[in-house]
Amino acid sequence: MFHKNEYIARRKQLAGQFSSGILLFLGNEESPMNFLDNTYHFRQDSTFLYYFGIQDPGLAAIIDIDEDKVILFGNEMSMDAIVWMGRQKTLAAKADDAGITSVSPSSQLETYLKTAKGRKVHFLPPYRAESKIKLADLLDLKLNDLSAAVSVPFIKAVVAQRSVKSAVELAELDKASEVSADMHLIAMQIARPGMSENEIAAAVHQVALKSGGQLSYPIILTVQGHILHNHYHGNILKEGDLVLNDSGAETAMGYAGDLTRTFPAGKKFLPEQKDAYNIVLHAYQEAVKTLKPGVRYLDLHYKSCLSLAEGLKSLGLMKGNLEDAVAQGAHALFFQCGTGHMMGLDVHDMEDLGEQYVGYTHELKKNTTQFGLKSLRLGKALEEGYVLTVEPGLYFIPELIDQWKESNQFSEYINYDKVEAYRNFGGIRVEDDYVVTSDGFRKLGKDLAITVEEVEEVRAKAY
Amino acid sequence: MFHKNEYIARRKQLAGQFSSGILLFLGNEESPMNFLDNTYHFRQDSTFLYYFGIQDPGLAAIIDIDEDKVILFGNEMSMDAIVWMGRQKTLAAKADDAGITSVSPSSQLETYLKTAKGRKVHFLPPYRAESKIKLADLLDLKLNDLSAAVSVPFIKAVVAQRSVKSAVELAELDKASEVSADMHLIAMQIARPGMSENEIAAAVHQVALKSGGQLSYPIILTVQGHILHNHYHGNILKEGDLVLNDSGAETAMGYAGDLTRTFPAGKKFLPEQKDAYNIVLHAYQEAVKTLKPGVRYLDLHYKSCLSLAEGLKSLGLMKGNLEDAVAQGAHALFFQCGTGHMMGLDVHDMEDLGEQYVGYTHELKKNTTQFGLKSLRLGKALEEGYVLTVEPGLYFIPELIDQWKESNQFSEYINYDKVEAYRNFGGIRVEDDYVVTSDGFRKLGKDLAITVEEVEEVRAKAY
Repeated sequence: MFHKNEYIARRKQLAGQFSSGILLFLGNEESPMNFLDNTYHFRQDSTFLYYFGIQDPGLAAIIDIDEDKVILFGNEMSMDAIVWMGRQKTLAAKADDAGITSVSPSSQLETYLKTAKGRKVHFLPPYRAESKIKLADLLDLKLNDLSAAVSVPFIKAVVAQRSVKSAVELAELDKASEVSADMHLIAMQIARPGMSENEIAAAVHQVALKSGGQLSYPIILTVQGHILHNHYHGNILKEGDLVLNDSGAETAMGYAGDLTRTFPAGKKFLPEQKDAYNIVLHAYQEAVKTLKPGVRYLDLHYKSCLSLAEGLKSLGLMKGNLEDAVAQGAHALFFQCGTGHMMGLDVHDMEDLGEQYVGYTHELKKNTTQFGLKSLRLGKALEEGYVLTVEPGLYFIPELIDQWKESNQFSEYINYDKVEAYRNFGGIRVEDDYVVTSDGFRKLGKDLAITVEEVEEVRAKAY
Repeated sequence: MFHKNEYIARRKQLAGQFSSGILLFLGNEESPMNFLDNTYHFRQDSTFLYYFGIQDPGLAAIIDIDEDKVILFGNEMSMDAIVWMGRQKTLAAKADDAGITSVSPSSQLETYLKTAKGRKVHFLPPYRAESKIKLADLLDLKLNDLSAAVSVPFIKAVVAQRSVKSAVELAELDKASEVSADMHLIAMQIARPGMSENEIAAAVHQVALKSGGQLSYPIILTVQGHILHNHYHGNILKEGDLVLNDSGAETAMGYAGDLTRTFPAGKKFLPEQKDAYNIVLHAYQEAVKTLKPGVRYLDLHYKSCLSLAEGLKSLGLMKGNLEDAVAQGAHALFFQCGTGHMMGLDVHDMEDLGEQYVGYTHELKKNTTQFGLKSLRLGKALEEGYVLTVEPGLYFIPELIDQWKESNQFSEYINYDKVEAYRNFGGIRVEDDYVVTSDGFRKLGKDLAITVEEVEEVRAKAY
């Protein structure tokens, strides 16, 4: 945990945004795998973590604006629980760590809220079914009525606050990116033709666990890099394959790293792989140097798409006026997603609170219809302290190529005949994590091989 | 997956237990971690896996007894889903793998059940909140009314069938135990004073992942072995510590392994550790040789408790008539849990269906009040094909010692003065997995060092 003053200050800043009502925070429960008591590793809700820092299941808290009170709700351990789990801190001691002086048994939360009848109870959108059931019970709402009743002012206040990372948060995010870089280095070092994706993914996962943390999201480690969220690790690496590794660590305090590298299964990139790789790398570099306060991420995204399109033109895959092509989304045959997203306590920071609030504004709405743009999670102007990813890529998806070709989609911009030669090429992505500074940007974590030469050097040394 | 005939035969056997009604099976959904789309690794529901074998989220199935039909409900992939997840089999192809010829969109399940109004819809106890919400919707029940409406005949039929493992299941369970043995061997080889529990747990986890599977339950790897379900891995090993490793692999098909070893952080056990270890090992051996069809596991449990009590008497910690002591539960100060449990697709097999059905009978009810006995998951007579664990231990829990001593509990059987010397001893457990054969038992998997000499030899070789 951070020092208690950090949590006190965060809550004070939040409370300052409200003139009345109760802010309700539900911590997460254990998440059952194949029966109630066989659970996945516990992950606290990120907003609860941000304002209270306590990493135990079964907690809730309120900030009562009218009464100027903060109360932590939870239950003390029974002797049976001590036998099974070991003695832990009392609820009061846990609360004290977070600078809270009032604690109350879990059963009192319902009473508190019922007594507050008539006053507004603000709550955030639940993403776990357990929380939905609990909220519906506490607030006497039907499950189907919950989403209409979430508090938009609460969402906006939390998003505004969590979007700008403090110095202690940046130190944690640096740590997450550092461990993530180690996860990538080991993959680049050990991968060999004949090895299974599973074996490499297991080694990558081990680095995250060894650091005392977890994964910030399921590992994508695949020789089929064009399948964007591929969690299958059953393929065997072959000479000539590209290995795409998209993986990141979550620190013990819950902060995420999110890096991607693509490297040859053999010692070196093939010539056509090198060409495509350098197109992606150039788009990445173009995007990164654009980062500074005031720049809209949407414009950075266009810049990286245009750079990709220029590269694709040099390969003969695209043609015509590329600015028009990118504006209309023709490049999305090869780059179907966004250039990046906010990151913090969540790898897609605050995605539970809604992309429209985290990545866009009232004036700049998300384009939810255009293929490609509809997957861009961040569009709005950057501010100092924002942490985000930059991750352009090129993906050759046979099913999509066939679909577009059949309907002659964007044929003024795409040379479908030339595309055929790439249909089994796979995918390439590079990705790093950045914080926006007062006059530009700083890369989080530490250096990790990214140019063709650097990647091949790591491979050569390890072989 | 097994061959489709395996699933066809299993469903036929189950259907044969019912004369009318509909058997409803809900597959599991993805389980969100910190936002909806950032999920834990997918784990299919074990009963769904047993009868249908399909490892994808979002599925349901019915066996309609009256109409003699099996239908798989699910949705086909959209092009968007193909872009993100890669092309997968059609629903019809997945169904065919499981020997099912009828498929239907998910939305049709509700219609099917509503049309069946008046006929009995049998369902099993849900353990995930998503399933509870879905069941309540489908069956027009309140969430709180679900548990009273579960089908006991359905539970009993599934338990009877899943309890007896077939040859193909035993092959998978052997594989799970083999990988689990490798997980334990690496821990014994790499652990050194000065190393963190995290580092060893990460290496153990890696072995499970590298095999293409997962963990069958969260790793317990601790120098505080007396905390029974300790998932904290932050301690640093010291010379003189005992390391307790309770961990197991889940195969890609979902079958569990569950092994425990306790070994010295240094090269050798201390003399008093060796003595206590041999007491546990002897109790384990006594229990194992009792295994055969017809023997009540409750009696095996008593035998292992009595053996532990005799050992504790030899150390001077217990006294008096030990059979009486064990019958009354005095030994439970040092052994607070059960000697073992059923294992299969779940590490505690079918725990979601209810311990009273899995581990006990109408005649032999579980003792739910006596400390120790109330944690024994299996009591009933064994049958050929049952797979189970044998895992006695000794645990010195300071809080429990203080509580019992203060109230003079069982002081005719316990030498509290002598116990004091052991209050910081920690805990010891050994555990292997067995199948009950026609005339006795067979250990699953492969050999793994278990005697003091064998464990010290592994340590000596690796140092």
